[in-house]
Amino acid sequence: MSEFLKGTGKSESLATSGWNILTEEVSFPVAVVKQSAITNNAQWMAQYARQAGVRLAPHGKTTMLPDVFKQQIEQGAWAISLATVPQVLNAVEQGIERVILANQLIGKFHFELIAQLLSQTDTEFYCFVDSPDNARQLGAFFQSKNVTLNILLEVGVEHGRCGVRSSEQLFDLLDVCQQFKALKVCGLSFYEGVITQEHAQQRIHSFVTDVIAMAVQIEQRQGFAIDNPIITGAGSAWYDVVAKAMNDSESRELFTYVLRPGCYLIHDTGIYQSAQQQVLQRSQLACDIKGGLTSGLYLWAYVVSRAEPNLAIIGLGKRDVAFDAGLPTPQLIFSPTTQKLDKAPTEFRVTAIMDQHCMMSIASDSALKVGDLVCFSTSHPCLTFDKWRQIGVVDDDWVISKTLATYF
Amino acid sequence: MSEFLKGTGKSESLATSGWNILTEEVSFPVAVVKQSAITNNAQWMAQYARQAGVRLAPHGKTTMLPDVFKQQIEQGAWAISLATVPQVLNAVEQGIERVILANQLIGKFHFELIAQLLSQTDTEFYCFVDSPDNARQLGAFFQSKNVTLNILLEVGVEHGRCGVRSSEQLFDLLDVCQQFKALKVCGLSFYEGVITQEHAQQRIHSFVTDVIAMAVQIEQRQGFAIDNPIITGAGSAWYDVVAKAMNDSESRELFTYVLRPGCYLIHDTGIYQSAQQQVLQRSQLACDIKGGLTSGLYLWAYVVSRAEPNLAIIGLGKRDVAFDAGLPTPQLIFSPTTQKLDKAPTEFRVTAIMDQHCMMSIASDSALKVGDLVCFSTSHPCLTFDKWRQIGVVDDDWVISKTLATYF
Repeated sequence: MSEFLKGTGKSESLATSGWNILTEEVSFPVAVVKQSAITNNAQWMAQYARQAGVRLAPHGKTTMLPDVFKQQIEQGAWAISLATVPQVLNAVEQGIERVILANQLIGKFHFELIAQLLSQTDTEFYCFVDSPDNARQLGAFFQSKNVTLNILLEVGVEHGRCGVRSSEQLFDLLDVCQQFKALKVCGLSFYEGVITQEHAQQRIHSFVTDVIAMAVQIEQRQGFAIDNPIITGAGSAWYDVVAKAMNDSESRELFTYVLRPGCYLIHDTGIYQSAQQQVLQRSQLACDIKGGLTSGLYLWAYVVSRAEPNLAIIGLGKRDVAFDAGLPTPQLIFSPTTQKLDKAPTEFRVTAIMDQHCMMSIASDSALKVGDLVCFSTSHPCLTFDKWRQIGVVDDDWVISKTLATYF
Repeated sequence: MSEFLKGTGKSESLATSGWNILTEEVSFPVAVVKQSAITNNAQWMAQYARQAGVRLAPHGKTTMLPDVFKQQIEQGAWAISLATVPQVLNAVEQGIERVILANQLIGKFHFELIAQLLSQTDTEFYCFVDSPDNARQLGAFFQSKNVTLNILLEVGVEHGRCGVRSSEQLFDLLDVCQQFKALKVCGLSFYEGVITQEHAQQRIHSFVTDVIAMAVQIEQRQGFAIDNPIITGAGSAWYDVVAKAMNDSESRELFTYVLRPGCYLIHDTGIYQSAQQQVLQRSQLACDIKGGLTSGLYLWAYVVSRAEPNLAIIGLGKRDVAFDAGLPTPQLIFSPTTQKLDKAPTEFRVTAIMDQHCMMSIASDSALKVGDLVCFSTSHPCLTFDKWRQIGVVDDDWVISKTLATYF
């Protein structure tokens, strides 16, 4: 009997001969990633980055599966991006050597942790800075520890998230940073994903162009501490527009461009599938790369009740799967009784989700029974991963060959 | 330096002298429960149940903190309710002896786990059954294992979740169950929380009255396998209406009534605060109990950016806190620089949340700085707990005296 059941944290080791989902060898619901899909997606994006002439620092926050980070590095990723200090420490502990904290580094506890990391390991570490206050705190602390901190000045947009809102603020921030020897200004960073709604494509292109223009000005003032300073941005929705703006720049050769998409690796059948369809409409380069991104995350769950003719209640809820950007989509139905595996009928649709259940509308003449298994794809992969301490890795026959620990 | 930081799972042991949030001795964001609040809430509901003449089987899925389950049992709870088989196993492993799986028991892997549990321990275990299909599967399996399974037949409502929709279906289900000696029909169960919108109070009272009437019919046919069969229902929003309907029944003495609220223990400043205000308007019994429920879950996080005059970006996101039933509410502000702890100004308000950040609108003349700490209360406690592997327990001075492991 497999020990792979939610909440036990017991199955960090490889299953000897695998656990077959279709013979119910695990507890359901179960979350699995398809090895073939994530290998494909990692290769696809690596190739895209190579052909676009940019480096890749995939955002690891999506999965927090350091085993998968290593696969991304092996396929050519330059670094792994992370969102918090604990995420950085987990990645480093698992063998990642170059990390971007794609966020501000705040608070004395985190300062101390990063100072320890930098003095005790050879980790190449970068973080974002967007305020003189934070720059002074970092500068004073790291000076006192005699540790040099690589920083990327973050540029943002009005009504966005972090980042200075103007070149004036940027130069003020740079001035403060340059008062501290411990702060090594290695480039600029941004996140274009907060630019939405009308004319987003044009606005993102123009925003990235502006960021590069600011970088040129800083370079002309010899404001960067390294050659070929870094300019880094891009999530999984607009990476092609960011890459195009980088390549359109007349100052292309001056900088090292680094993209930070995360969700491409797992992909989905929701918001990121739509985003990728837009990428393919915009980018000949993306179209020219063989294959394409494919959804790699699946949840299998039981039909627990057939309370009404048109309604199946599924043992899968908000505790198990993302629900913030579209509900899970039924893909396959498996009957343990008849051993038949079929595509889910197109009319099957999740209409609501509660903590531990979801409601799936079905045709009233459906043969779907209590105890049948439904396989769902998702929208927005990040918010499924943090619900699981162990994720199964499956081959294309739905056999779990190993489990990977998440580090949330 | 404390080892209490998200994702590391490293701090299962007691901190020797505690970790002080206000001297930044932990990584932020951090999730903590106030011991005084949960002790108060556990006592309040225990007293409510005693005075209402009902037993309490608090739903443990909210926190999945078995340490807290034990506190609830010590304060008089009769059992702990859980939503999934792994949750049941975790609770039992941590010392809980009577559990209700407030859900259907589905699938051969789960059957096997529960059969092992019942044959290897003295656990008193109940689960819900709502379909002849499931009854036949359970009956055949547990018969073959020579293990008796306590079941509660679940009654539901049209357009609801699980549960038979009519007394005809209930009696058909009972007939099937009685074909299997291994199935011991111990009572009826329901969940009224899916009855919402217009006249919910009246509809819930009438639904519970109907369930009791069905139980009386089954009792008259000697359909239950135990004396004083169980009738169990109630979440944290309508427990008073359920208890009233139970007490209004002329057949009161025939049954053992068991309430299963969960969220009351942690409570919130959102949907459950509103629900409890409604309880107090409806129930003199609730009003007569000293004190009242108080929100027990808090998240402390840094201001990471003051990018615009009216906007603070906080290092707290969907990966850290519930967002499905209202965004977190700023309660306190602490400045590490001035050491001042103040109530959050009423105009501070979270307006949006992303994976790792939220946006808080503030007055443009606010002195709030990058590196200041904000303490948030929440709405819908369940969906915060499953984001954390360790929850801090704080006294009223915000010192973490110990950490508790969650079992999701």
